[in-house]
Amino acid sequence: MSVQIAAKDVKELRERPGAGMMDCKSALQETGGDADKALELLRVQLGTKVGKLAGREATEGTVQAYIHSNGKVGVLVEVDCNTDFVARNEDFVAFARDLALHIAASPQTRYVSAEQVPDADREAELRVYEQQAADKPENVRPRIAEGKLKKWLEDVVLLHQVHVNADKHDGRTIEELRSDLSAKTGENVVVRRFVRFAVGQD
Amino acid sequence: MSVQIAAKDVKELRERPGAGMMDCKSALQETGGDADKALELLRVQLGTKVGKLAGREATEGTVQAYIHSNGKVGVLVEVDCNTDFVARNEDFVAFARDLALHIAASPQTRYVSAEQVPDADREAELRVYEQQAADKPENVRPRIAEGKLKKWLEDVVLLHQVHVNADKHDGRTIEELRSDLSAKTGENVVVRRFVRFAVGQD
Repeated sequence: MSVQIAAKDVKELRERPGAGMMDCKSALQETGGDADKALELLRVQLGTKVGKLAGREATEGTVQAYIHSNGKVGVLVEVDCNTDFVARNEDFVAFARDLALHIAASPQTRYVSAEQVPDADREAELRVYEQQAADKPENVRPRIAEGKLKKWLEDVVLLHQVHVNADKHDGRTIEELRSDLSAKTGENVVVRRFVRFAVGQD
Repeated sequence: MSVQIAAKDVKELRERPGAGMMDCKSALQETGGDADKALELLRVQLGTKVGKLAGREATEGTVQAYIHSNGKVGVLVEVDCNTDFVARNEDFVAFARDLALHIAASPQTRYVSAEQVPDADREAELRVYEQQAADKPENVRPRIAEGKLKKWLEDVVLLHQVHVNADKHDGRTIEELRSDLSAKTGENVVVRRFVRFAVGQD
Protein backbone atom coordinates (compact mmCIF):
# COMPACT_ATOMS: atom_id res chain seq x y z
CA MET A 1 0.00 0.00 0.00
CA SER A 2 1.37 3.42 -0.95
CA VAL A 3 -0.20 6.65 0.27
CA GLN A 4 0.77 10.28 -0.25
CA ILE A 5 2.78 11.33 2.78
CA ALA A 6 3.14 15.06 3.46
CA ALA A 7 6.67 16.23 4.21
CA LYS A 8 5.22 18.00 7.24
CA ASP A 9 4.03 14.71 8.75
CA VAL A 10 7.39 13.04 8.20
CA LYS A 11 9.04 16.02 9.80
CA GLU A 12 6.77 15.97 12.84
CA LEU A 13 7.40 12.31 13.41
CA ARG A 14 11.13 12.79 13.00
CA GLU A 15 11.14 15.23 15.87
CA ARG A 16 10.63 12.23 18.12
CA PRO A 17 14.26 11.47 18.94
CA GLY A 18 15.83 8.36 17.54
CA ALA A 19 13.83 8.05 14.33
CA GLY A 20 15.45 8.67 10.95
CA MET A 21 13.71 10.16 7.93
CA MET A 22 13.36 6.90 6.01
CA ASP A 23 12.09 5.08 9.11
CA CYS A 24 9.41 7.72 9.58
CA LYS A 25 8.38 7.81 5.96
CA SER A 26 7.97 4.07 5.68
CA ALA A 27 6.15 3.89 9.02
CA LEU A 28 3.73 6.58 7.84
CA GLN A 29 3.19 4.75 4.58
CA GLU A 30 2.47 1.50 6.39
CA THR A 31 -0.08 3.20 8.64
CA GLY A 32 -1.71 5.17 5.84
CA GLY A 33 -0.44 8.47 7.21
CA ASP A 34 -1.64 8.04 10.79
CA ALA A 35 1.08 9.66 12.92
CA ASP A 36 0.10 8.04 16.23
CA LYS A 37 0.04 4.57 14.71
CA ALA A 38 3.30 5.31 12.93
CA LEU A 39 4.94 6.22 16.22
CA GLU A 40 3.71 2.95 17.72
CA LEU A 41 5.15 1.06 14.79
CA LEU A 42 8.47 2.91 15.08
CA ARG A 43 8.70 2.10 18.76
CA VAL A 44 8.35 -1.58 17.94
CA GLN A 45 10.76 -1.39 15.00
CA LEU A 46 13.38 0.56 16.88
CA GLY A 47 13.14 -1.60 19.97
CA THR A 48 11.28 1.04 22.01
CA LYS A 49 14.31 3.31 21.94
CA VAL A 50 12.24 6.15 20.47
CA GLY A 51 9.97 6.30 23.49
CA LYS A 52 12.79 5.85 25.93
CA LEU A 53 14.98 8.55 24.44
CA ALA A 54 12.23 11.13 24.58
CA GLY A 55 12.51 11.20 28.36
CA ARG A 56 16.28 11.33 28.55
CA GLU A 57 18.11 14.56 29.03
CA ALA A 58 21.12 15.31 26.85
CA THR A 59 23.81 16.04 29.44
CA GLU A 60 26.90 14.89 27.57
CA GLY A 61 28.21 16.50 24.43
CA THR A 62 30.97 18.30 22.61
CA VAL A 63 32.09 21.88 22.09
CA GLN A 64 33.64 22.60 18.70
CA ALA A 65 34.87 25.70 16.92
CA TYR A 66 35.47 26.96 13.40
CA ILE A 67 37.69 29.89 12.48
CA HIS A 68 37.66 31.27 8.93
CA SER A 69 41.19 31.04 7.57
CA ASN A 70 41.57 34.80 7.63
CA GLY A 71 40.75 34.92 11.36
CA LYS A 72 37.95 37.42 10.81
CA VAL A 73 35.03 35.14 11.70
CA GLY A 74 34.78 32.49 14.39
CA VAL A 75 32.03 30.22 15.68
CA LEU A 76 31.67 28.14 18.83
CA VAL A 77 28.95 25.46 19.09
CA GLU A 78 27.79 22.99 21.71
CA VAL A 79 26.01 19.83 20.61
CA ASP A 80 24.71 17.50 23.31
CA CYS A 81 23.82 13.82 23.52
CA ASN A 82 23.19 11.22 26.22
CA THR A 83 26.52 9.48 26.75
CA ASP A 84 30.18 10.36 26.69
CA PHE A 85 30.64 7.40 24.34
CA VAL A 86 28.62 9.12 21.62
CA ALA A 87 30.10 12.54 22.51
CA ARG A 88 33.49 11.17 21.40
CA ASN A 89 32.07 9.43 18.33
CA GLU A 90 33.69 10.54 15.08
CA ASP A 91 30.38 11.25 13.28
CA PHE A 92 29.09 13.20 16.25
CA VAL A 93 32.17 15.44 16.46
CA ALA A 94 32.15 15.85 12.66
CA PHE A 95 28.51 17.02 12.82
CA ALA A 96 29.41 19.67 15.44
CA ARG A 97 32.38 20.89 13.40
CA ASP A 98 30.36 21.01 10.18
CA LEU A 99 27.70 22.95 12.05
CA ALA A 100 30.28 25.54 13.19
CA LEU A 101 31.45 25.93 9.60
CA HIS A 102 27.84 26.34 8.43
CA ILE A 103 27.15 29.09 11.00
CA ALA A 104 30.38 30.91 10.09
CA ALA A 105 29.02 31.14 6.54
CA SER A 106 25.49 32.05 7.70
CA PRO A 107 25.61 35.44 9.46
CA GLN A 108 21.81 35.71 9.43
CA THR A 109 21.47 32.83 11.93
CA ARG A 110 19.95 34.05 15.20
CA TYR A 111 18.22 31.12 16.90
CA VAL A 112 18.73 27.37 17.15
CA SER A 113 15.05 26.44 16.86
CA ALA A 114 11.75 28.17 16.07
CA GLU A 115 10.73 27.63 19.72
CA GLN A 116 13.59 29.89 20.80
CA VAL A 117 12.30 32.88 18.83
CA PRO A 118 10.85 35.23 21.48
CA ASP A 119 7.14 35.97 20.98
CA ALA A 120 7.92 39.68 20.87
CA ASP A 121 10.35 39.22 17.94
CA ARG A 122 7.89 37.03 16.07
CA GLU A 123 5.08 39.55 16.54
CA ALA A 124 7.32 42.46 15.53
CA GLU A 125 8.20 40.68 12.27
CA LEU A 126 4.55 39.86 11.63
CA ARG A 127 3.54 43.50 12.11
CA VAL A 128 6.12 44.60 9.53
CA TYR A 129 4.83 42.04 7.02
CA GLU A 130 1.22 43.03 7.65
CA GLN A 131 2.11 46.65 6.94
CA GLN A 132 4.00 45.67 3.81
CA ALA A 133 0.85 43.90 2.60
CA ALA A 134 -1.37 46.94 3.31
CA ASP A 135 -2.08 47.45 -0.40
CA LYS A 136 -3.38 43.88 -0.80
CA PRO A 137 -7.03 42.88 -0.28
CA GLU A 138 -7.78 42.57 3.43
CA ASN A 139 -8.78 38.91 3.29
CA VAL A 140 -5.40 37.75 1.91
CA ARG A 141 -3.19 39.95 4.10
CA PRO A 142 -2.83 37.52 7.03
CA ARG A 143 -1.85 34.71 4.65
CA ILE A 144 0.77 36.87 2.92
CA ALA A 145 2.20 37.99 6.27
CA GLU A 146 2.29 34.41 7.59
CA GLY A 147 4.09 33.30 4.44
CA LYS A 148 6.71 35.98 4.90
CA LEU A 149 7.11 35.07 8.56
CA LYS A 150 7.74 31.45 7.59
CA LYS A 151 10.37 32.58 5.09
CA TRP A 152 11.99 34.72 7.79
CA LEU A 153 12.11 31.77 10.17
CA GLU A 154 13.81 29.68 7.47
CA ASP A 155 16.45 32.41 7.30
CA VAL A 156 17.18 33.02 10.95
CA VAL A 157 16.52 29.60 12.53
CA LEU A 158 19.52 27.28 12.36
CA LEU A 159 17.59 23.99 12.26
CA HIS A 160 15.48 25.21 9.31
CA GLN A 161 18.49 26.13 7.17
CA VAL A 162 19.91 24.00 4.36
CA HIS A 163 23.56 23.23 5.15
CA VAL A 164 25.80 25.60 3.19
CA ASN A 165 27.81 22.63 1.98
CA ALA A 166 24.82 21.39 -0.04
CA ASP A 167 26.92 19.06 -2.20
CA LYS A 168 28.34 17.20 0.76
CA HIS A 169 25.00 17.05 2.58
CA ASP A 170 22.65 16.45 -0.36
CA GLY A 171 20.78 19.70 0.23
CA ARG A 172 19.52 18.55 3.62
CA THR A 173 18.59 20.95 6.42
CA ILE A 174 20.45 21.09 9.73
CA GLU A 175 17.38 19.49 11.37
CA GLU A 176 17.51 16.60 8.88
CA LEU A 177 21.22 16.09 9.54
CA ARG A 178 20.59 16.25 13.28
CA SER A 179 17.77 13.77 13.11
CA ASP A 180 19.77 11.35 10.96
CA LEU A 181 22.65 11.52 13.44
CA SER A 182 20.19 10.85 16.26
CA ALA A 183 18.90 7.76 14.45
CA LYS A 184 22.44 6.60 13.67
CA THR A 185 23.75 7.01 17.21
CA GLY A 186 20.51 6.00 18.94
CA GLU A 187 20.71 9.03 21.21
CA ASN A 188 19.17 12.46 21.52
CA VAL A 189 21.18 14.96 19.54
CA VAL A 190 20.54 18.51 20.74
CA VAL A 191 22.10 21.64 19.28
CA ARG A 192 22.39 23.43 22.62
CA ARG A 193 23.85 26.83 21.64
CA PHE A 194 26.17 28.70 19.34
CA VAL A 195 27.92 32.03 19.12
CA ARG A 196 29.41 33.79 16.10
CA PHE A 197 32.00 36.57 16.31
CA ALA A 198 32.92 38.68 13.27
CA VAL A 199 35.59 41.36 13.58
CA GLY A 200 34.05 44.83 13.47
CA GLN A 201 30.48 43.60 14.04
CA ASP A 202 28.47 43.27 17.25
CA MET B 1 66.98 60.53 40.83
CA SER B 2 64.90 57.62 42.08
CA VAL B 3 61.44 58.13 43.59
CA GLN B 4 58.90 55.64 44.93
CA ILE B 5 56.43 54.95 42.12
CA ALA B 6 53.06 53.47 43.09
CA ALA B 7 51.96 50.49 40.97
CA LYS B 8 48.62 52.28 40.55
CA ASP B 9 50.30 55.22 38.81
CA VAL B 10 52.25 52.99 36.47
CA LYS B 11 49.03 51.18 35.71
CA GLU B 12 47.11 54.35 34.98
CA LEU B 13 49.77 55.57 32.64
CA ARG B 14 49.93 52.22 30.90
CA GLU B 15 46.27 52.49 30.04
CA ARG B 16 47.33 55.11 27.50
CA PRO B 17 47.72 52.85 24.49
CA GLY B 18 51.16 52.26 23.12
CA ALA B 19 53.15 52.55 26.32
CA GLY B 20 54.78 49.48 27.91
CA MET B 21 55.21 48.95 31.65
CA MET B 22 58.93 49.69 31.72
CA ASP B 23 58.48 52.83 29.60
CA CYS B 24 55.87 54.11 32.02
CA LYS B 25 57.85 53.29 35.14
CA SER B 26 60.99 55.00 33.93
CA ALA B 27 59.03 58.02 32.68
CA LEU B 28 57.36 58.34 36.08
CA GLN B 29 60.73 58.07 37.82
CA GLU B 30 62.19 60.76 35.60
CA THR B 31 59.31 63.12 36.34
CA GLY B 32 59.27 62.40 40.08
CA GLY B 33 55.90 60.63 39.85
CA ASP B 34 54.05 63.37 37.95
CA ALA B 35 51.70 61.49 35.61
CA ASP B 36 50.99 64.41 33.26
CA LYS B 37 54.66 65.18 32.78
CA ALA B 38 55.38 61.46 32.37
CA LEU B 39 52.81 61.26 29.59
CA GLU B 40 54.47 64.22 27.87
CA LEU B 41 57.82 62.51 28.15
CA LEU B 42 56.41 59.26 26.79
CA ARG B 43 54.91 61.07 23.82
CA VAL B 44 58.34 62.43 22.98
CA GLN B 45 60.10 59.13 23.59
CA LEU B 46 57.60 57.10 21.62
CA GLY B 47 57.44 59.58 18.76
CA THR B 48 53.98 60.89 19.68
CA LYS B 49 52.40 57.53 18.92
CA VAL B 50 50.90 57.35 22.43
CA GLY B 51 48.78 60.44 21.95
CA LYS B 52 47.82 59.54 18.42
CA LEU B 53 46.71 56.03 19.27
CA ALA B 54 44.42 57.17 22.06
CA GLY B 55 42.04 58.60 19.50
CA ARG B 56 42.06 55.66 17.11
CA GLU B 57 39.34 53.08 17.15
CA ALA B 58 40.31 49.42 17.02
CA THR B 59 38.33 48.16 14.04
CA GLU B 60 40.59 45.39 12.80
CA GLY B 61 41.39 42.25 14.71
CA THR B 62 41.30 38.49 14.98
CA VAL B 63 38.88 35.84 16.23
CA GLN B 64 40.54 32.79 17.76
CA ALA B 65 39.31 29.68 19.57
CA TYR B 66 40.56 27.10 22.01
CA ILE B 67 38.98 23.68 22.56
CA HIS B 68 40.10 21.49 25.46
CA SER B 69 41.38 18.23 24.02
CA ASN B 70 38.43 16.34 25.48
CA GLY B 71 35.97 18.62 23.65
CA LYS B 72 34.14 19.48 26.87
CA VAL B 73 35.19 23.14 27.07
CA GLY B 74 35.58 25.71 24.31
CA VAL B 75 36.35 29.41 24.16
CA LEU B 76 35.99 32.01 21.43
CA VAL B 77 37.73 35.41 21.73
CA GLU B 78 37.95 38.55 19.65
CA VAL B 79 40.99 40.81 20.03
CA ASP B 80 41.04 44.05 18.05
CA CYS B 81 43.72 46.42 16.81
CA ASN B 82 44.04 49.25 14.28
CA THR B 83 45.30 47.64 11.09
CA ASP B 84 44.91 44.38 9.25
CA PHE B 85 48.71 44.22 9.11
CA VAL B 86 48.91 43.84 12.91
CA ALA B 87 45.79 41.61 12.97
CA ARG B 88 47.79 39.06 10.96
CA ASN B 89 50.96 39.52 13.01
CA GLU B 90 52.22 36.30 14.60
CA ASP B 91 52.54 37.76 18.11
CA PHE B 92 49.08 39.27 17.90
CA VAL B 93 47.41 36.01 16.86
CA ALA B 94 49.44 34.11 19.50
CA PHE B 95 48.18 36.54 22.18
CA ALA B 96 44.56 35.88 21.15
CA ARG B 97 45.08 32.10 21.16
CA ASP B 98 46.83 32.17 24.55
CA LEU B 99 43.97 34.26 25.86
CA ALA B 100 41.43 31.66 24.71
CA LEU B 101 43.44 28.94 26.46
CA HIS B 102 43.58 31.06 29.63
CA ILE B 103 39.81 31.59 29.66
CA ALA B 104 39.16 27.88 29.07
CA ALA B 105 41.11 27.22 32.28
CA SER B 106 39.43 30.12 34.16
CA PRO B 107 35.70 29.38 34.49
CA GLN B 108 35.25 32.21 37.00
CA THR B 109 35.91 34.84 34.30
CA ARG B 110 32.82 36.98 33.72
CA TYR B 111 33.93 40.36 32.36
CA VAL B 112 36.74 41.68 30.18
CA SER B 113 37.41 44.83 32.22
CA ALA B 114 36.32 46.30 35.56
CA GLU B 115 34.41 48.98 33.62
CA GLN B 116 32.15 46.27 32.20
CA VAL B 117 30.96 45.09 35.61
CA PRO B 118 27.39 46.43 35.91
CA ASP B 119 26.91 48.79 38.87
CA ALA B 120 24.13 46.55 40.17
CA ASP B 121 26.49 43.52 40.32
CA ARG B 122 29.19 45.53 42.02
CA GLU B 123 26.76 46.88 44.62
CA ALA B 124 25.27 43.44 45.24
CA GLU B 125 28.75 42.03 45.94
CA LEU B 126 29.55 44.96 48.21
CA ARG B 127 26.36 44.41 50.23
CA VAL B 128 27.29 40.77 50.79
CA TYR B 129 30.77 41.72 51.99
CA GLU B 130 29.39 44.42 54.27
CA GLN B 131 27.05 41.88 55.85
CA GLN B 132 29.89 39.39 56.22
CA ALA B 133 31.83 42.09 58.11
CA ALA B 134 28.88 42.85 60.42
CA ASP B 135 30.78 41.54 63.46
CA LYS B 136 33.72 43.89 62.89
CA PRO B 137 33.94 47.44 64.35
CA GLU B 138 31.81 49.80 62.30
CA ASN B 139 34.68 52.09 61.28
CA VAL B 140 36.68 49.29 59.56
CA ARG B 141 33.73 47.59 57.80
CA PRO B 142 33.82 49.68 54.59
CA ARG B 143 37.55 49.03 54.20
CA ILE B 144 37.10 45.26 54.70
CA ALA B 145 34.23 45.19 52.22
CA GLU B 146 36.19 47.24 49.66
CA GLY B 147 39.13 44.85 50.04
CA LYS B 148 36.91 41.86 49.36
CA LEU B 149 35.36 43.59 46.37
CA LYS B 150 38.83 44.19 44.93
CA LYS B 151 39.66 40.52 45.45
CA TRP B 152 36.40 39.54 43.70
CA LEU B 153 37.23 41.80 40.73
CA GLU B 154 40.64 40.14 40.45
CA ASP B 155 38.78 36.83 40.20
CA VAL B 156 36.08 37.65 37.67
CA VAL B 157 37.72 40.34 35.51
CA LEU B 158 39.84 38.93 32.71
CA LEU B 159 42.34 41.81 32.46
CA HIS B 160 43.08 41.61 36.22
CA GLN B 161 43.91 37.89 36.14
CA VAL B 162 47.40 36.43 36.10
CA HIS B 163 47.76 34.26 32.99
CA VAL B 164 47.28 30.58 33.92
CA ASN B 165 50.50 29.76 32.12
CA ALA B 166 52.51 31.72 34.70
CA ASP B 167 55.83 30.10 33.73
CA LYS B 168 55.52 31.14 30.10
CA HIS B 169 54.28 34.62 30.93
CA ASP B 170 56.42 35.40 34.02
CA GLY B 171 53.37 35.73 36.25
CA ARG B 172 52.09 38.74 34.33
CA THR B 173 48.40 39.69 34.22
CA ILE B 174 46.37 39.69 31.02
CA GLU B 175 46.39 43.51 31.13
CA GLU B 176 50.19 43.52 31.34
CA LEU B 177 50.44 41.14 28.39
CA ARG B 178 47.94 43.27 26.46
CA SER B 179 49.81 46.47 27.22
CA ASP B 180 53.18 44.96 26.25
CA LEU B 181 51.70 43.77 22.95
CA SER B 182 50.30 47.25 22.35
CA ALA B 183 53.75 48.77 22.92
CA LYS B 184 55.37 46.14 20.72
CA THR B 185 52.95 46.54 17.80
CA GLY B 186 52.45 50.29 18.25
CA GLU B 187 48.67 49.84 18.03
CA ASN B 188 45.70 49.75 20.34
CA VAL B 189 45.12 46.18 21.50
CA VAL B 190 41.57 45.70 22.74
CA VAL B 191 40.13 42.49 24.13
CA ARG B 192 36.68 43.00 22.64
CA ARG B 193 34.73 39.95 23.88
CA PHE B 194 34.86 36.30 24.78
CA VAL B 195 32.52 33.39 25.33
CA ARG B 196 33.13 30.11 27.14
CA PHE B 197 31.00 26.98 26.65
CA ALA B 198 31.32 23.99 28.99
CA VAL B 199 29.20 20.89 28.34
CA GLY B 200 26.47 20.54 30.96
CA GLN B 201 26.83 24.12 32.25
CA ASP B 202 24.97 27.28 31.34
